[in-house]
Amino acid sequence: MGVLPVVNTYPLSSYTFGTKEPKMEKDTSVADRLARMKVNYMKEGMRTSVEAILLVQEHNHPHILLLQIGNTFCKLPGGRLKPGENEIEGLKRKLSSKLAANSASHQPNWQVGECVAVWWRPNFETVMYPYCPPHITKPKECKKLFLVHLSEREYFAVPKNLKLLAVPLFELYDNVQRYGPVISTIPQQLSRFQFNMVNA
Amino acid sequence: MGVLPVVNTYPLSSYTFGTKEPKMEKDTSVADRLARMKVNYMKEGMRTSVEAILLVQEHNHPHILLLQIGNTFCKLPGGRLKPGENEIEGLKRKLSSKLAANSASHQPNWQVGECVAVWWRPNFETVMYPYCPPHITKPKECKKLFLVHLSEREYFAVPKNLKLLAVPLFELYDNVQRYGPVISTIPQQLSRFQFNMVNA
Repeated sequence: MGVLPVVNTYPLSSYTFGTKEPKMEKDTSVADRLARMKVNYMKEGMRTSVEAILLVQEHNHPHILLLQIGNTFCKLPGGRLKPGENEIEGLKRKLSSKLAANSASHQPNWQVGECVAVWWRPNFETVMYPYCPPHITKPKECKKLFLVHLSEREYFAVPKNLKLLAVPLFELYDNVQRYGPVISTIPQQLSRFQFNMVNA
Repeated sequence: MGVLPVVNTYPLSSYTFGTKEPKMEKDTSVADRLARMKVNYMKEGMRTSVEAILLVQEHNHPHILLLQIGNTFCKLPGGRLKPGENEIEGLKRKLSSKLAANSASHQPNWQVGECVAVWWRPNFETVMYPYCPPHITKPKECKKLFLVHLSEREYFAVPKNLKLLAVPLFELYDNVQRYGPVISTIPQQLSRFQFNMVNA
């Protein structure tokens, strides 16, 4: 107690980035997405999704890796678990699908660490809350954010239709307009960690 | 990994509330407060403060205990550590000063738990950030928020000039106008905990 958990971060320049085939979004509109969510809910019950916070450093400040789709929308790497899938294994599977080379021998060492936030979707709508609201007995989605500890050197393969950005915490903070409620409060959720900026 | 830490919460009705002598604020204005901060910084260096998140439940939803000063301003119980003081011991001292009966035999069992957030004040100004901003080598204050686990029954003595409120997470969420940036993002910081609502 009192001692903050330590997270090692390495410079962005210590990682290598390549490209791979595009990974298209399954839905072309928010309405499509919510409709598909409803169909899946009928079949499989509550959707469980997992997302990763991958940290690097630049200018002695922590940065988070975000995937940018088109010119504006940013998301964390991750996705939906298969029914019954273990969340740690599922997150590794999703990270490899989004960010690793296709060769099985070039997979990053995904070290899934602390769960830092849990968000709930009460209805088939875009709004989510960091608690399950009172009187909601059947939430439609539970999304967990995990800190994933990166090794000192890794190779990432980014789908050609996406851009991988390293965004500083100070850019995310208090910027709900640009990043939405989930990503813009990551700085608060990470504030309890002590960053050990390794100058590799 | 994957399993969320559990926090037991008990109904508000299982606690008893009385009053005690007023505890006046040391400063009557924000300007006074910042001026006193500056004087103390010259003498003692960076200010370290600790605050407690005390949880109760009502209507099957977690509520946080906040001290209200006057009709609008709310704060978490806690305060400034003495130079060199241990933060856990200092938080217990502050909690007893703000919320316990004067009798040494009626002290609540303050179980200081997880640090859930750390905020930094870069300058002698009101704004704080959930990280130490780049290029700030001498922050003026570091404030840590701790989850304090309450026992099933306790007696609280509230200073007569203050009101103790139990505020639901859904009221704090996305309400920076009313509660400020620190308190309004507590729901996000608590989202990783699993609340075990004990119906005592």
